Amino acid sequence: MRRFAADRARRAVAASLRGAASSRSAAPSPLAPAPRYPAPPVGAAAMAAALARTMSTAAAGTPPVSMDTINPKVLKCEYAVRGEIVTHAQNLQQELQKNPDSLPFDEILYCNIGNPQSLGQQPVTYFREVLSLCDHPGLLDKSETHALYSSDAIERAWQILEKIAGRATGAYSHSQGIKGLRDEIAAGIAARDGFHASGDNIFLTDGASPAVHMMMQLLIGSEKDGILCPIPQYPLYSASIALHGGSLVPYFLDEETGWGLEVDELKKQLEEARSKGITVRALVVINPGNPTGQVLAEENQKKIVEFCKNEGLVLLADEVYQENIYVEDKQFHSFKKVARSLGYTDDDLPLVSFHSVSKGYYGECGKRGGYMEITGFSPEVREQIYKLASVNLCSNVSGQILASLVMNPPKAGDESFESFMVERDGILSSLARRAKALEEAFNSLEGITCNKAEGAMYLFPRLHLPQKAIGAAHAAGTAPDAYYAKRLLEATGIVIVPGSGFGQVPGTWHFRCTILPQEDKIPAIISSFKEFHEKFMDEFRD
Amino acid sequence: MRRFAADRARRAVAASLRGAASSRSAAPSPLAPAPRYPAPPVGAAAMAAALARTMSTAAAGTPPVSMDTINPKVLKCEYAVRGEIVTHAQNLQQELQKNPDSLPFDEILYCNIGNPQSLGQQPVTYFREVLSLCDHPGLLDKSETHALYSSDAIERAWQILEKIAGRATGAYSHSQGIKGLRDEIAAGIAARDGFHASGDNIFLTDGASPAVHMMMQLLIGSEKDGILCPIPQYPLYSASIALHGGSLVPYFLDEETGWGLEVDELKKQLEEARSKGITVRALVVINPGNPTGQVLAEENQKKIVEFCKNEGLVLLADEVYQENIYVEDKQFHSFKKVARSLGYTDDDLPLVSFHSVSKGYYGECGKRGGYMEITGFSPEVREQIYKLASVNLCSNVSGQILASLVMNPPKAGDESFESFMVERDGILSSLARRAKALEEAFNSLEGITCNKAEGAMYLFPRLHLPQKAIGAAHAAGTAPDAYYAKRLLEATGIVIVPGSGFGQVPGTWHFRCTILPQEDKIPAIISSFKEFHEKFMDEFRD
Repeated sequence: MRRFAADRARRAVAASLRGAASSRSAAPSPLAPAPRYPAPPVGAAAMAAALARTMSTAAAGTPPVSMDTINPKVLKCEYAVRGEIVTHAQNLQQELQKNPDSLPFDEILYCNIGNPQSLGQQPVTYFREVLSLCDHPGLLDKSETHALYSSDAIERAWQILEKIAGRATGAYSHSQGIKGLRDEIAAGIAARDGFHASGDNIFLTDGASPAVHMMMQLLIGSEKDGILCPIPQYPLYSASIALHGGSLVPYFLDEETGWGLEVDELKKQLEEARSKGITVRALVVINPGNPTGQVLAEENQKKIVEFCKNEGLVLLADEVYQENIYVEDKQFHSFKKVARSLGYTDDDLPLVSFHSVSKGYYGECGKRGGYMEITGFSPEVREQIYKLASVNLCSNVSGQILASLVMNPPKAGDESFESFMVERDGILSSLARRAKALEEAFNSLEGITCNKAEGAMYLFPRLHLPQKAIGAAHAAGTAPDAYYAKRLLEATGIVIVPGSGFGQVPGTWHFRCTILPQEDKIPAIISSFKEFHEKFMDEFRD
Repeated sequence: MRRFAADRARRAVAASLRGAASSRSAAPSPLAPAPRYPAPPVGAAAMAAALARTMSTAAAGTPPVSMDTINPKVLKCEYAVRGEIVTHAQNLQQELQKNPDSLPFDEILYCNIGNPQSLGQQPVTYFREVLSLCDHPGLLDKSETHALYSSDAIERAWQILEKIAGRATGAYSHSQGIKGLRDEIAAGIAARDGFHASGDNIFLTDGASPAVHMMMQLLIGSEKDGILCPIPQYPLYSASIALHGGSLVPYFLDEETGWGLEVDELKKQLEEARSKGITVRALVVINPGNPTGQVLAEENQKKIVEFCKNEGLVLLADEVYQENIYVEDKQFHSFKKVARSLGYTDDDLPLVSFHSVSKGYYGECGKRGGYMEITGFSPEVREQIYKLASVNLCSNVSGQILASLVMNPPKAGDESFESFMVERDGILSSLARRAKALEEAFNSLEGITCNKAEGAMYLFPRLHLPQKAIGAAHAAGTAPDAYYAKRLLEATGIVIVPGSGFGQVPGTWHFRCTILPQEDKIPAIISSFKEFHEKFMDEFRD
């Protein structure tokens, strides 16, 4: 039997594998079909060559994996938000732990990443109560629980468990996420937008990043497939496009007009890409902007939607900062709302909205919750998206629950409502004050100009560096903004990300700095930053 | 400024992006470097062609995304565990909810997937207590908490929070996971194996699946890169290889010898692949086996390690069922332990061990926790793996905590130890009884033979179908095992996965059935299965 198996295997394995996973295919063809790998060289010479290769691998002691043999797409991909500067900061932190007096500062201040709770932001109590109860449903039957948890959190945990088959928070869910939670999220979207939303269109994911990867994986088949991305951009996009082997087609945000997104620029870049044989598949818009912090005007969004509709592009809307708006005259409008208000339906425009529990006022980065709402895809393509989701089984259930809470927080009249609003508004108003304080501080410095942070969690100031500083950076073999960031870190412990990590107009230099340090630390950060910057400018003034 | 920016952008965007994310690169070259996309056709004709394309896209109303334009690798990928049969089952379930008397059974029994808690397995109390406390750390300061939680769970939650900077369970962690938890996992591995393990080698992941994808992404650059995979295999592997565009190089497990893994077969398949120009990068071994349930003997594992060492292959060891062993004469040995006991060090062999919180006695699938331990990679390659992890920021922190608990459960003397052991042993011994009962039942049926489930959570019985049944399947346009599975589902509500979803020797037919329904349901399942099977055989007996 075994011999038989092995013999048949050699001849027909491809048939088995291809016929395999689909029950639609009938029995394997009796004729050996095309193998899964390229056609072999045949005969004794090939066998000898193969043996020689085998021998040499073993004999020469070549490492099985090296920089020369790994996937070149991995080598190409870069992710500066957790790149070199952060590794350097982590090393300094270890040094500081070993020898607290070894450096000119007491602590590392991670302003490189939108990670609010790492800088002291407290989680929203109600959300955590519900998660805690869902993690240990046995508590719900005990009277002592009422001494520790608010009654509406207990009620909500019951409601959530009722949405989960067998109340099994430890089971894989449907690959799109628990249906009842998706319906709740859809209701939240509908309430936000004033247009219908369906739980069937929601895919719950471990944060927004896996959702973005999933869409890139779907849309990119080769380097001929292009994705229009803002520059500067959040480097998840460039990383994901690189990993999937596509072409990033850049469009530049206009720093002069507060990081404006102009449709003329989109058109120009689209046409140029097309003239180079690129099929542009999608447009990425990040609103509110990351790293740039601008909030798009509704009129502007309408033009963007029309552009995607006319050009046949998927609109990939990164809307994870939808709760983070800090100026009176701007409001968040989802692209789906804008599209629907223009009268466009599912038939007109494929649109994906990414959202996450990591941002907003909740900032629950570690929970890895998020969703994408997909509309305007054909049933066959949706099935392919579902298949991609199913290969990873499902996203984590706590993150799923949290995503539903974020889209359906306590309402007026609920026991927790008032304390919830105090926490929520406290965080959002403090973020607005911090954004303003940092923006003003940066703008007060020689050689720095900084647009307003209308939203999101970042400032992206421009560095107008003296030639001497640029020369020093080149001499050190680094980009000038990276050089500046390194010097800042070593002098103050403040971690920022060089603009080069996000893309910028060549010859300009920027950095991204989060607005997330706790408010009582902002004055000290500003003065330490100022002191460093003034010294730096003095050192290099032309 | 804006015009200037746009103009420069067109010329030099590639420089910006390439120079971008790495601070090692100096300022962009003044010469326009190679663009990120293929060289353009030049001149007016090209522009006209581009415009024509633009017009036609918009005018013809071609959908922006179709089955013809999406990534063909996505189309190729299949994942039967959540495939057609499961969708059919979900539809029947909805029918059953609407009209309970419409079908010849009361409930759908999902035996398609290793998802214990969906079938009623209760979570381990201690683990859930700790997770619940970590989700709501405010509880730890309250005296009432002692009425609801065991004191060692409270103590453990404190210890865990101390390992997290700022006790921020809602912050992104290090991209490999929280260092203190990784160290704890490493200590658990060292205790299990008797050989050193380091937290620096642990990558915490959202279950084992993303870890497998990460390694495939690293190792596969093109279809010339091959991965040796068992047949039958867990379809995550074929799906991941397809998605990353590599070649699955199959080796057949020998059903006759209890799904034996023979090194002669590995060699034969390796040589054949090499003769076809495939560079085989890695060997996947699933131990205990999925879907096949066998547990490898240590001597066998030694030969496999030697094979990888001699042939220069990465050993990808799927060890997620390491706690699931049901026979007295078999034990789990990690491949790392086997390699170290042979005297091989980090310098000899790249080895990855995948583990998960979804299996074992805990079965916490919905928590999406897991890790991979990587050893034997060069620092440069490790850095690339780290970069891949960092693009998704980190895995969910609850899953990270759970992974540390699983590798360091309560010890003798702890308050929870006894109740923990009762829960643990209760689940494991029940699983062993269920495996045996189902195996005996299958073997008692005409036309079914079934190897022992030594471990894991599955049986993979072989169907010896009458020619008439095979003919009926072909007439229905499905594979015979898929036909059988569909008929079984429609008659009994039992969901199994056809063997074709895992790969099998062509011309043989199997199915995978989990051993996970609760023990009190097993007799009814067996009798309903028997009844179906006997009728099926009567209907089709040649």
